[in-house]
Amino acid sequence: MKSTKSSTGVWFVGARGSVATTAVVGALGVRHGLAPTTGLVTELPELDPDGLPGLDGLVFGGHDVSPRSLTKKAEALADDGVVPAVLVAAVGAELAAIDDDVRHGYDPAEESVAEAVERLAADIAGFRERHDLERVVVVDVASTQPPAQDPESLRTLDDDLPVGAVYALAAFAAGAPYVTFTPSPCLRLPVVIEAAERSGLPYAGCDGKTGETLFKSALAPMFASRNLALRSWASFNLLGGGDGATLADPVTARSKTDTKRSGLDAIAGHAVPGPMHIDQVEELGEWKTAWDHVLFDGFLGTRMTMQITWQGCDSALAAPLVLDLVRLTAAAHAAGRSGALSELGFFFKDPIGGTEHRLAEQWRELVTWRRGLDA
Amino acid sequence: MKSTKSSTGVWFVGARGSVATTAVVGALGVRHGLAPTTGLVTELPELDPDGLPGLDGLVFGGHDVSPRSLTKKAEALADDGVVPAVLVAAVGAELAAIDDDVRHGYDPAEESVAEAVERLAADIAGFRERHDLERVVVVDVASTQPPAQDPESLRTLDDDLPVGAVYALAAFAAGAPYVTFTPSPCLRLPVVIEAAERSGLPYAGCDGKTGETLFKSALAPMFASRNLALRSWASFNLLGGGDGATLADPVTARSKTDTKRSGLDAIAGHAVPGPMHIDQVEELGEWKTAWDHVLFDGFLGTRMTMQITWQGCDSALAAPLVLDLVRLTAAAHAAGRSGALSELGFFFKDPIGGTEHRLAEQWRELVTWRRGLDA
Amino acid sequence: MKSTKSSTGVWFVGARGSVATTAVVGALGVRHGLAPTTGLVTELPELDPDGLPGLDGLVFGGHDVSPRSLTKKAEALADDGVVPAVLVAAVGAELAAIDDDVRHGYDPAEESVAEAVERLAADIAGFRERHDLERVVVVDVASTQPPAQDPESLRTLDDDLPVGAVYALAAFAAGAPYVTFTPSPCLRLPVVIEAAERSGLPYAGCDGKTGETLFKSALAPMFASRNLALRSWASFNLLGGGDGATLADPVTARSKTDTKRSGLDAIAGHAVPGPMHIDQVEELGEWKTAWDHVLFDGFLGTRMTMQITWQGCDSALAAPLVLDLVRLTAAAHAAGRSGALSELGFFFKDPIGGTEHRLAEQWRELVTWRRGLDA
Amino acid sequence: MKSTKSSTGVWFVGARGSVATTAVVGALGVRHGLAPTTGLVTELPELDPDGLPGLDGLVFGGHDVSPRSLTKKAEALADDGVVPAVLVAAVGAELAAIDDDVRHGYDPAEESVAEAVERLAADIAGFRERHDLERVVVVDVASTQPPAQDPESLRTLDDDLPVGAVYALAAFAAGAPYVTFTPSPCLRLPVVIEAAERSGLPYAGCDGKTGETLFKSALAPMFASRNLALRSWASFNLLGGGDGATLADPVTARSKTDTKRSGLDAIAGHAVPGPMHIDQVEELGEWKTAWDHVLFDGFLGTRMTMQITWQGCDSALAAPLVLDLVRLTAAAHAAGRSGALSELGFFFKDPIGGTEHRLAEQWRELVTWRRGLDA
Repeated sequence: MKSTKSSTGVWFVGARGSVATTAVVGALGVRHGLAPTTGLVTELPELDPDGLPGLDGLVFGGHDVSPRSLTKKAEALADDGVVPAVLVAAVGAELAAIDDDVRHGYDPAEESVAEAVERLAADIAGFRERHDLERVVVVDVASTQPPAQDPESLRTLDDDLPVGAVYALAAFAAGAPYVTFTPSPCLRLPVVIEAAERSGLPYAGCDGKTGETLFKSALAPMFASRNLALRSWASFNLLGGGDGATLADPVTARSKTDTKRSGLDAIAGHAVPGPMHIDQVEELGEWKTAWDHVLFDGFLGTRMTMQITWQGCDSALAAPLVLDLVRLTAAAHAAGRSGALSELGFFFKDPIGGTEHRLAEQWRELVTWRRGLDA
Repeated sequence: MKSTKSSTGVWFVGARGSVATTAVVGALGVRHGLAPTTGLVTELPELDPDGLPGLDGLVFGGHDVSPRSLTKKAEALADDGVVPAVLVAAVGAELAAIDDDVRHGYDPAEESVAEAVERLAADIAGFRERHDLERVVVVDVASTQPPAQDPESLRTLDDDLPVGAVYALAAFAAGAPYVTFTPSPCLRLPVVIEAAERSGLPYAGCDGKTGETLFKSALAPMFASRNLALRSWASFNLLGGGDGATLADPVTARSKTDTKRSGLDAIAGHAVPGPMHIDQVEELGEWKTAWDHVLFDGFLGTRMTMQITWQGCDSALAAPLVLDLVRLTAAAHAAGRSGALSELGFFFKDPIGGTEHRLAEQWRELVTWRRGLDA
Repeated sequence: MKSTKSSTGVWFVGARGSVATTAVVGALGVRHGLAPTTGLVTELPELDPDGLPGLDGLVFGGHDVSPRSLTKKAEALADDGVVPAVLVAAVGAELAAIDDDVRHGYDPAEESVAEAVERLAADIAGFRERHDLERVVVVDVASTQPPAQDPESLRTLDDDLPVGAVYALAAFAAGAPYVTFTPSPCLRLPVVIEAAERSGLPYAGCDGKTGETLFKSALAPMFASRNLALRSWASFNLLGGGDGATLADPVTARSKTDTKRSGLDAIAGHAVPGPMHIDQVEELGEWKTAWDHVLFDGFLGTRMTMQITWQGCDSALAAPLVLDLVRLTAAAHAAGRSGALSELGFFFKDPIGGTEHRLAEQWRELVTWRRGLDA
Repeated sequence: MKSTKSSTGVWFVGARGSVATTAVVGALGVRHGLAPTTGLVTELPELDPDGLPGLDGLVFGGHDVSPRSLTKKAEALADDGVVPAVLVAAVGAELAAIDDDVRHGYDPAEESVAEAVERLAADIAGFRERHDLERVVVVDVASTQPPAQDPESLRTLDDDLPVGAVYALAAFAAGAPYVTFTPSPCLRLPVVIEAAERSGLPYAGCDGKTGETLFKSALAPMFASRNLALRSWASFNLLGGGDGATLADPVTARSKTDTKRSGLDAIAGHAVPGPMHIDQVEELGEWKTAWDHVLFDGFLGTRMTMQITWQGCDSALAAPLVLDLVRLTAAAHAAGRSGALSELGFFFKDPIGGTEHRLAEQWRELVTWRRGLDA
């Protein structure tokens, strides 16, 4: 990990949520030598960490509608076993300082979209100036939003714009590269795409690939390259607390199940039937369990099955990827790249600008792209 | 699938075993349009099937020490649900004809190694002449043999040579390209390597990657490229009838567990601890069940698990790969290739001549190599 | 198994369905010594088989709306691996004869409820006379029906009566003991209860306990008697062909999920949260897979999990229980019992007349009751 | 839970191990209202807790060969997530006081068996007098010991006596009821049985039923009462730290696999084949994972499977049962019972004096016996 001072800012949409808090606590922990770099893709030699903005130079701030402090959230995560309690204690003062850089988020009940874009952009620009940063990367790690009703119609600063789109517009208005880790389809709305193109900034998304979709994108190519016929792939997800509650609403969940399903069909080359459910189990807290049941045919139609149970902590899986995306997007910006960074598809369920879903191919594309940044 | 007549012979070591029988019944089924090409990798467009020896032109024969006819074996496999009973009935006459081309195998109690090599080679050459074949590919699909005690010492036609090595020497003596689908390490014995090099023939092996090792080689790279730390990977295999009985002997099983384990360590870049067991459960018949328990660390050391249950039919997984290997090895021979075909590592647990174990990379190597054959 | 001639008739509602066909083929197979008595509870010594109507004396008939013959259905089941093909071939002539005793079922589009009850009852009575039977037990093994909208209001021969209720009324009108193996709640409708009571006949139901609910009723008491706190019990069911299609309709499925859930809560002594899904996976055919995820607290609130995967063939699980219920209900009728046979709760998800759901306690009740029949 | 002062002492063999420490911390937690009574069977109304020695009156002491203090051990358990850290902090002073009542254990290298029995008995008696206790129950929760080579030959105070037997003899010599929660077969040695009988004291054991064997004893009766034929039951256990290391030695493990297997065969009524492995996975710490694969036949021989994955914390499962056994054994002693308490089989893999292994039947026996104590 690079130890020289960098001047990259990280602006979280949802700065006091589980993912952002875990990312901040973890970055501070790694910086102080209190935590290993496990889970950080950008620390692998293939991605040449020394040529990327160092973790120890990142400066954090963000928007959130919640008044609960970063410190309180970090303590709650420690209680849930997501981050070590000793680590939270060790970085307490730094967390409090970062919390001072969290600004009130966007609430449609409080201001118009046009007002919000202007105010949020000013917050981002102010943060950049206050800390004398070379650039700020905006990363949306807020809760999943319902899909837009008629995305094609959203071509102006309409007050029906999804919340996520407002933040994206504010990022571009502030001259900040933008990454969305949520399934909100704002990078597919004409008004956002137009603003992105006009800004000449790089952007990436969407929907972080952290669990079930991750292992699907590793396993489905196995069936494809062995010419084994996928007859059905059933997916069941049990989620705890926060994200689980949001996704218990079937309309909102559609944002997620849509992006989860598309990759499998693309890899298989045909629609693979099978139910997909996301259910909330309050008691699971920050943890989630996925069970997948795969029915496939081998030679002469012999029917076989593969079952997978995945027990993971969503925030611990997402947080390092968020830091990776900041480092890579900042490096792309520094290298003068603009538009959709399709080569970051490795990180996403629904890669903007790309059609490749096979994990190993995405990894290869990422490594090649990273090398090209230095050229 | 190519429909023109080819003149490629397939000589099975273990011609009346489950894998060979399934391969023969399946090839005949596909030839007559009675079975789909599911499971045949060489039928994927990436491998340009039309440029390979057609399934409908393959001519079958082989060695076996068992006197039980191919037809009887096929009927037993139908009872076990491995091949459709109607298919066995439809190709009954052809099976009987192929059985006439099965010759008595090598039994160390009956003849010396030198005598055996000569006799077996003559069988192969006779088959080639009798059917006017351009070439014969020898494929070893016999039962797993115990590992050689001191492989380095086996430099001559010593009577301590493992059974598999005798067949390999016979193939090379007969001028036949050779593939071993079993874990027997004969392609690593000096006396065999020397004969292979002298012959100028292409060869490939060893130990077909059909189940647990297959999905490991698809999943382990996911952990590696996400920088997730593999703490333990436990593997439990329940096998039925034939192969289960052979592997119930711990010494013989070592051939298999050794090759199963090495790939994982190579992909992870370090030794991944964890028990590995192969147990026989008679009642499973031709089926096997594997359960894997993976313990890994995410960001900040958060402990997570992944569990996989694989329920497959070994012969139905192996048989199409055997046909693939014949077609590819025959094409390599036709193209003048010689020596270890390391680019066929996609098919093997323990690829001769190669060090790549990641399935997706192996697939990419295979596709590139296949394209090169036509150049 | 008793070998003396009995004069008990079995009248299936849904006589050409999977369960009835498997029961008939199996009973004939056992009768001819071609199949073991596995799965038949009434063949256990605790239930004194010799004192019950013998399997070899049962005479079969029934109603069905499908014109597809019993023989065709049996052949389809053999293709699906539910019954051995050789057994179907061996009892072919008997199946054809039984098919002659299958009468056209009730279709609300064709006749009024009053007409139907009269016609169906005449069919049953005719069967009894034609074969000179001492008694006929009517068993409903038809597809799951949607729950009645307002069960309390159904007090007359209203044309809104659920289909299952019409068959129950016909059974009572014909003087036949009645068992329902489906989740249809007809034994809870006032008009049916009244007819049942008036008839003085014994009856039993409802919803056969064959898979997930079966193992739940064995496992949930373990948690209760160990004072382990059930925090969540998630249940996912993948069903193939027939039953799957019926249950894909969420309204109809409610009949089933309601009865599946109630037992668990009763055993735990409180409502246990957790999702429950029934999904159709066409390709599973006659097979079903259930995955349950149980989250529980041990001492000091330590959170633990248990997961269960059940892969079963529904008809093979249900068919022997249907034969058991016929034998036991016939014996109860012979012994002069009337009303709800609550002691048969061992067989049902939603036992009529009983509140005990713990499998071991139900078994104890059944054995005690069986002994009492001889007193 | 009873709140009146009791005068029951608890003397742990292995007082500073995971199970004893968890039991002590938990008992103190419940006493102070800081923890729920989850997992304590004796808090269920069926066992009439008010008539048993109250948890708040138990006085703790014991033997251990480890010098590491109870407090250190409790802190390590908190780090591992077995007991809440706040609870350990809250009862710190009490733990230190209890640690003063832990005496040096028996080490065959240091003293003869005869000397040890005398010294250990004096420790127990001293504890009873020092705290003015009505009675002391000795509970062996030490590590698993290898099975005795020739148990029948051990008829005197021979120095080949297993370690566990020495503690049992000391308990009887001190007039203390004795319970062994370990698989050590000392209650089956003639010299121990004789001492037990002579003492007129009650005793119970052996090998606490906490995980895989627990759910087996709940599930196996389901197969039996449904007449489903168990063809194979494979059991794989992954254990962490302490117990895992002990059981990695195959000879010692035999103590455990022997008792685990016998119950299943007894319930099934025949030997059920299938592999059983216990493997250490260091990284699992205090946690264990068991995977069971059950192959069974239904009607007409249709083959089906059930798989179970159990992820539990051994100490959290064992500790409350140890407290239950103390309360019940003390009550039995108070009621004048002597000899093997076979009705406590509910708690054990290998119940001394009993042959019933079905969990529900054991529960019923326990409840009946408990009622009889008050008579």
